[in-house]
Amino acid sequence: MGLNCLGNIIKLTTFGESHGKAIGGVIDGLPAKMEVDFDLINAEIERRKGGKYFFETQRKEKEAVEFISGICNGLTLGTPVAFIVRNVDTASKDYENLANIYRPSHADFSWQMKYGIRDYRGGGRASARETLTWVIAGAFAKMVLKNYKINITAFVSQIGEVSLGKTYAEFNLSKIISSPLYCPDKIAEKEMLALLKKIAKEGDSVGGIITCVVKNCPVGLGEPVFGKLQAQLAAAMLSINAVKGFEYGSGFKASAMKGSKHNDEFINKNGRIGTATNNSGGIQGGISNGEDIYFSVAFKPVASITKNQDTVDIKGKSAHIAIKGRHDVCPVPRAVPVVEALTALVIADNVMMSGIYRQI
Amino acid sequence: MGLNCLGNIIKLTTFGESHGKAIGGVIDGLPAKMEVDFDLINAEIERRKGGKYFFETQRKEKEAVEFISGICNGLTLGTPVAFIVRNVDTASKDYENLANIYRPSHADFSWQMKYGIRDYRGGGRASARETLTWVIAGAFAKMVLKNYKINITAFVSQIGEVSLGKTYAEFNLSKIISSPLYCPDKIAEKEMLALLKKIAKEGDSVGGIITCVVKNCPVGLGEPVFGKLQAQLAAAMLSINAVKGFEYGSGFKASAMKGSKHNDEFINKNGRIGTATNNSGGIQGGISNGEDIYFSVAFKPVASITKNQDTVDIKGKSAHIAIKGRHDVCPVPRAVPVVEALTALVIADNVMMSGIYRQI
Amino acid sequence: MGLNCLGNIIKLTTFGESHGKAIGGVIDGLPAKMEVDFDLINAEIERRKGGKYFFETQRKEKEAVEFISGICNGLTLGTPVAFIVRNVDTASKDYENLANIYRPSHADFSWQMKYGIRDYRGGGRASARETLTWVIAGAFAKMVLKNYKINITAFVSQIGEVSLGKTYAEFNLSKIISSPLYCPDKIAEKEMLALLKKIAKEGDSVGGIITCVVKNCPVGLGEPVFGKLQAQLAAAMLSINAVKGFEYGSGFKASAMKGSKHNDEFINKNGRIGTATNNSGGIQGGISNGEDIYFSVAFKPVASITKNQDTVDIKGKSAHIAIKGRHDVCPVPRAVPVVEALTALVIADNVMMSGIYRQI
Amino acid sequence: MGLNCLGNIIKLTTFGESHGKAIGGVIDGLPAKMEVDFDLINAEIERRKGGKYFFETQRKEKEAVEFISGICNGLTLGTPVAFIVRNVDTASKDYENLANIYRPSHADFSWQMKYGIRDYRGGGRASARETLTWVIAGAFAKMVLKNYKINITAFVSQIGEVSLGKTYAEFNLSKIISSPLYCPDKIAEKEMLALLKKIAKEGDSVGGIITCVVKNCPVGLGEPVFGKLQAQLAAAMLSINAVKGFEYGSGFKASAMKGSKHNDEFINKNGRIGTATNNSGGIQGGISNGEDIYFSVAFKPVASITKNQDTVDIKGKSAHIAIKGRHDVCPVPRAVPVVEALTALVIADNVMMSGIYRQI
Repeated sequence: MGLNCLGNIIKLTTFGESHGKAIGGVIDGLPAKMEVDFDLINAEIERRKGGKYFFETQRKEKEAVEFISGICNGLTLGTPVAFIVRNVDTASKDYENLANIYRPSHADFSWQMKYGIRDYRGGGRASARETLTWVIAGAFAKMVLKNYKINITAFVSQIGEVSLGKTYAEFNLSKIISSPLYCPDKIAEKEMLALLKKIAKEGDSVGGIITCVVKNCPVGLGEPVFGKLQAQLAAAMLSINAVKGFEYGSGFKASAMKGSKHNDEFINKNGRIGTATNNSGGIQGGISNGEDIYFSVAFKPVASITKNQDTVDIKGKSAHIAIKGRHDVCPVPRAVPVVEALTALVIADNVMMSGIYRQI
Repeated sequence: MGLNCLGNIIKLTTFGESHGKAIGGVIDGLPAKMEVDFDLINAEIERRKGGKYFFETQRKEKEAVEFISGICNGLTLGTPVAFIVRNVDTASKDYENLANIYRPSHADFSWQMKYGIRDYRGGGRASARETLTWVIAGAFAKMVLKNYKINITAFVSQIGEVSLGKTYAEFNLSKIISSPLYCPDKIAEKEMLALLKKIAKEGDSVGGIITCVVKNCPVGLGEPVFGKLQAQLAAAMLSINAVKGFEYGSGFKASAMKGSKHNDEFINKNGRIGTATNNSGGIQGGISNGEDIYFSVAFKPVASITKNQDTVDIKGKSAHIAIKGRHDVCPVPRAVPVVEALTALVIADNVMMSGIYRQI
Repeated sequence: MGLNCLGNIIKLTTFGESHGKAIGGVIDGLPAKMEVDFDLINAEIERRKGGKYFFETQRKEKEAVEFISGICNGLTLGTPVAFIVRNVDTASKDYENLANIYRPSHADFSWQMKYGIRDYRGGGRASARETLTWVIAGAFAKMVLKNYKINITAFVSQIGEVSLGKTYAEFNLSKIISSPLYCPDKIAEKEMLALLKKIAKEGDSVGGIITCVVKNCPVGLGEPVFGKLQAQLAAAMLSINAVKGFEYGSGFKASAMKGSKHNDEFINKNGRIGTATNNSGGIQGGISNGEDIYFSVAFKPVASITKNQDTVDIKGKSAHIAIKGRHDVCPVPRAVPVVEALTALVIADNVMMSGIYRQI
Repeated sequence: MGLNCLGNIIKLTTFGESHGKAIGGVIDGLPAKMEVDFDLINAEIERRKGGKYFFETQRKEKEAVEFISGICNGLTLGTPVAFIVRNVDTASKDYENLANIYRPSHADFSWQMKYGIRDYRGGGRASARETLTWVIAGAFAKMVLKNYKINITAFVSQIGEVSLGKTYAEFNLSKIISSPLYCPDKIAEKEMLALLKKIAKEGDSVGGIITCVVKNCPVGLGEPVFGKLQAQLAAAMLSINAVKGFEYGSGFKASAMKGSKHNDEFINKNGRIGTATNNSGGIQGGISNGEDIYFSVAFKPVASITKNQDTVDIKGKSAHIAIKGRHDVCPVPRAVPVVEALTALVIADNVMMSGIYRQI
């Protein structure tokens, strides 16, 4: 079918191979006459860019986004906003030996079987380079959300076995922006950095968890029955390369809890109805209830490692591989703006669907 | 928007309130001339039905499904198959006191805010009664999958803090059908039953986890980039009432693993290319790779408990509630066929999308 | 694929075979808390019903519509409104001889080839009986439009070679409701009735044209580029059985006109900008401009005639047929409420898409 | 909503303003490993290009299409094919005086009202320049159709009041490619050219009709009930700027015919079942029946004329306008490849939907 498309009213269609001419996207359904915050777009691109720290890929694209349509004199026209980003620093030679071999835990084999053809250079369209287009589109979604003061913050809550000691509510999330790991816990971050250094030296990689919080979300977002807000968020998150799991509110821990302990009692919060606890994660019956929405996303370790691995070639014969290329040690630090971007797209789309949009 | 619709080619649209006249669904896009296995449909309905065990709701619907269209002489016509199931045993009186009060961790409040109106009887459309329509539709999906010998088995892998000692591969999954808890581990099941008895006596409820395995799935199912097979499965699972999380393959555990340990090496399996381990959970780059697909789904405890709880009424005033009605002690045993049904719908839809369908 | 679905936000899904148990539909995306006007629904059903005049089919269904869901105490819940109408007066025996023969200009052959199976009784799902579900759904759309005082009137503008002498603006459209042919021109109507009498006696049938006018439509409905209002209307009209053509505004006549004559000059109409003429038919660049929207729909003669015809059987052998059954002499009189219903659905859907909905 | 998208499986999303940086499109859902015929693409662009004859706009874009993604070594990858065409010869100055005035029968007013903003230069996104992207996408659809030997030919059948004397079957359609007007009737073409010369001299414009024939279309394309092949074709055609009407087969003439005359008798055509006549236009019950599909599309005269016209400015005050710019005298000659392109997209999409695709 080709489902390179996300959203219902604000609809993002993306295209592009990692080492092709460019990657890009088309954002349809944005409100007209909205001021485009180009600084925000560039800031989000910068956050996602590698090469700033030892644990990130050394691929350093200039990432110059060119807007093709839908914007006139700095305002959206209500027509599709299309954009492309040229692929410049493509060290395709690093991938030449991969034409005839399947990298373990990569998309090489299954895509080749599905299509009978693949662009093996840099992973083609299965590359995480795709997420750059999401971050750009997500910036537009954030512009929409700004009107409602809806605020989205993602952060690293676990790398390897190092996790935060406390819940998100106990940290000052506004400070994570200046942290290399987008981690609100300075003590945990130090341990994480030490771990990453060790893993990098081994030529290995490691997984992690990102947690995301949506604050000030109005009551009533989400659509029954197959458009529940958590279902939309889960689908978006599971679209990210390397993501293995999603949980919201109490998540997997809820399975071991009793109802009397888990239920969130309703209380009167200065005139508005809210809940005393928030195991529901801000969503009840698929619809936002006005409390913080929060969820966690589990990432597997980066599949590309420099260590030697056994595998097979495209004819099924035994082969060995040590992946050169330039890869992250851990996927989560650079995925923080990606999680935020997809969350912004989902929430903004639901704002538009809910009709709240027209009420400001 | 109203997203009461699941799927792309095999498309299920559902309708109905828990205590309304009936619930039902329309299944569009089924192959024509397919023999309808009515025994399978009834068996699936029976599996989902309550009232068989002490830990299940005592609501005992006859669940007589009436097929309205799309079937002629036992064969599908290729036109929409519509069906309804009348709501008979609706003890709506049990709910009358709920018209003016918000039950903790239920959909009452957020739905009321979204629509300005709600059918409070039995939870209206937010009730898990909706899942009956999924089980019926899922039976049709299973009929499609039978042609490809694709086999789906879900089972209870955790209730409260009691979980299986081993992985699914170490159990004989074909035996779970005769287990009250759809649990392949007889020792764990005994503990689970004891726990449920204790919880029931307390007037409380408890959560759990269901694991689902898809065997013999062909290579090539799933669609990039926003139609990854895991994203479609996650969205379907997060549509189930009470579900708080989804993970596939190595899942959340992957976040603590190293790449060298997590990567699934490709090997030659008697002529076909497969993987030595299966942390990928049968999906790589969003596309099935021919190995077992497996995933787990976390359920919160049932929100309806007979214990006293604090809450507010629709005007925001403090109130107390002890929910009568007839409710499950734990959501997972009856959700097993529901998880299977949604999985079957997603996989069958992807078979149709992949074009494999036309090749038999 | 199975595209038994119309609309984007107000979405109608239909099902049912002409001589199956029932036909029906699911209307998703209606505004919540809207009062359901059951009298309007029944009036629309009555208008479409046959058996009132000599030129109509003598099939006299009671057409008792049963609402299954989405309505509580006479108000919409915002959840899907599902309904069914049982097929009672099905003279299936009339069709038994059609199992093995293809009726000229019917769907029999092409549907059989597509699906490898068909319900030949009464035309199965290809029967115009389907339009009953549209008329019911259209009544809900009219309820939505009533809030905006948007008014839709369709009428018969041609039967055979008898057509109206003047344009719609020269007639009083509010009077057509009491006319057997929904024709605003009493002189033409008399001729039409005489023609129909003659055709009926011959055992033949005849075609016609319906014109539809939408008054008081706000500026701004319709979506570029592939969602132009005229494109949506055309698609809806060409979905009606027997329709062969669609034109709006100046229509086919525009092809012979000069620009200087055809262009609609803008003028100031008491403070609002309007046009002096209306060759544009109320739509410019795909978007409504506030003038009357009007369009015409051409119908072929009813394919079922009692005259003898040559054809082939399902094995390709020569055969002869004289269709018994009970059929209309001309499709247009009973299609008038059908054209209105689909127009109402398209316009109401576009009202919802435009965001105007939220502003009342 | 923003419906800049056409198709179900082969899905075209377009973007771009006439005088913006570029226009372009994303084609998703194409078969993988298909050889891209770049000569065909360029030939189609050339056919649509203006400036070759006196009756065409003198805007002479180089129309250099740049492919961004989805193609590798001349083969499709099965991923989205994105392309852009830079806008080079944009004489935006010609439009500067249009910022504050509404051109008669243009999209200026209705778009301004809908969005509160518009790119007035060259008509912005409402310009027929958009059709260039359709022609490029249509070339890909034609590549798909070539595998099934499905052939599409459009031609000019009327300009002003000059029309062909005979039906399409009486002409050799393969010869029209070398005709300036794509007209198969040399006598009519001469008259048409004379008419165009006269109209051009007057500073006026004129309308016309294009007829399109699809030969060798397999039985079984099209989807009931709202996806009838004629409904899909009508929607596509009514998306073309300046189109006012659509009819297929007998079209509007059917309304004056009797059933006994109109019905197409089935006959045995050397082993396959066909029809003796083809008033059905190759489609019965919404599904192709294997005969030629043919339809006609009516175009209004080009709205931009150099003659003086009365109108209003954006404040509703009287104004006068004589449109400079560079415009066609008649829309139909350059629309011939556009009609073919959209037809190819619709038919190819239905081939994919029907499953026939997988059988070659």
